[in-house]
This record gives sequence, C-alpha cells and structure tokens, in this order.
Amino acid sequence: MKESGRKVGAVSPCAACKLLRRRCAQVCVFAPYFPADEPQKFASVHKVFGASNVNKMLQELPEHQRRDAVSSMVYEANARVRDPVYGCVGAISSLQKQIDSLQTQLALAQAEVVHMRMRQFSTSSSPGAMDRAVDQAAMGESLWSC
Amino acid sequence: MKESGRKVGAVSPCAACKLLRRRCAQVCVFAPYFPADEPQKFASVHKVFGASNVNKMLQELPEHQRRDAVSSMVYEANARVRDPVYGCVGAISSLQKQIDSLQTQLALAQAEVVHMRMRQFSTSSSPGAMDRAVDQAAMGESLWSC
Repeated sequence: MKESGRKVGAVSPCAACKLLRRRCAQVCVFAPYFPADEPQKFASVHKVFGASNVNKMLQELPEHQRRDAVSSMVYEANARVRDPVYGCVGAISSLQKQIDSLQTQLALAQAEVVHMRMRQFSTSSSPGAMDRAVDQAAMGESLWSC
Repeated sequence: MKESGRKVGAVSPCAACKLLRRRCAQVCVFAPYFPADEPQKFASVHKVFGASNVNKMLQELPEHQRRDAVSSMVYEANARVRDPVYGCVGAISSLQKQIDSLQTQLALAQAEVVHMRMRQFSTSSSPGAMDRAVDQAAMGESLWSC
C-alpha cells in the first residue's frame, strides 16, 4: 500500500470513508492510515477531533509525517474517550508527579552517598582527607549524570 | 459570573460566539470558560477539536468538571498547534524519557550506597557485620521511598 493513496484495484472503502458513508477515492487522504479492519481508530479521532479537522491537519503535513500524526491523534483521542475531563493531560500530570518523586528519591540517595563519603574520609588518617571529601561532595551531582 | 451561564445583563458575546459570529445566549455553554478578553483560548480549541465537538464534550460533562475539561482541551490544542505531528503526545514521550533517565540515575546512586555500606561493614571488626550489610543492601530500596 502506498503512503499517498491505495492499492490499484482496491474496492473496499477505508474505515474513515465507511464511517462517513462516502466513496473512497484512489487519493483518499485517510486510506493509508485508517484501514477498514481497524474501524475503532477512525471512530475515536472522528469523535474527538472531527473528520474535517483530521483531514485538514493531515493535508497540512508532508506525507512522511502523516503516519506519526495519525498515531498521536489516535492516542490523544483514545485518552480523551477514556477520560473526558483530562484526556492525555491526565497522563502528563501523572508523569510529572512521578518525576517529582524520582527527583526527591535521587536527591536523598545522593545526599546519603555524600554523607557516607564524608564519614569515610573523616575516619581516614591521611592529611587533607576531609578537604578531598568536601571537594568530591561538591562534585557529587556529576557522578550520577548519565 | 455563574458557571451555568453569564451575568444577567451582560451584552458582549463570549470569545466563542464572537468567533462563530452567533448570538451569545444567557445559557451559552462556552461563555463561562471562554471570556471575550481571551480570544486565543477558543481559537485554539476550535481549530483542533472544532466548536461542535467542544460543545458536545462540555454538554456531556457535569458543570463542576467543565472548567478542568476546558483547561485540558486548551492545553492539548495549544500543544497540537505548536507541534502538528506529535501534539502533547510529544510531551508525554519526553517526560517518559526523563523518567527512564532518572530511574537509571537512581539505580546507580542506590548501588553506590549499597556498595559503600558493604565496604564499610566489611572493614568492621564485629562478628556478623557482613550479614547485616547484605540484609541492609537487600532492603536498600525501602530506604529511598518517600
């Protein structure tokens, strides 16, 4: 199947044209991304964005970006169907909370490492050991960056 | 301003009715959330979801959830206008990468703590110190949960 249209000789309409009850042209903008055997994909984007908006958004993009755009619209639409109040902004908020929690845990773990390193150096007998511990503690963060 | 409609006596149309060039009724579903002085909010959701879909989605929700729904729709629409290929799914993907990176950094920091603790115990003279170190290492994760 070509990105720009449909297989020559194909007669069955794509999922979009089937739902919209219209003739599925050879150059149908929906056909490459909404196959007849996955009707739910188009049903979701149609419900949330509207067929005309989806059509417009696809037409405004170069062909090589349309598949990704359809995937992200289907994802967004499904999220909005599942959660009509927050849609995929709910997922963003939940991921943001997870990041805050991980940053707190990481800060605690890094503080623990610095604390242990300083204790270790303070019991060492070599001169200047505490200075080195403080220097390493100051550099602490770079140890964990990956 | 009431959630269910507009101030009695208000004459200027809301941003939605202004854009759609229609009369803004006392019970206009858009008016409480799309004030005339913020025209860009409605312009974005109209471009991405379509006024009719926004209307339908709001009508299907109880009034106390409509403000959050509008905020999340405006957020989503602005993200789609900024990034027509990935929309706010791009933000989700970027947050997910940030989480993966933080989880790796946290695992490294926790491993460092366990390593230092075991080294500390192994140089200790008390009997059974190594067993305690291994026990503490096994419990490692609970030390960081917050």
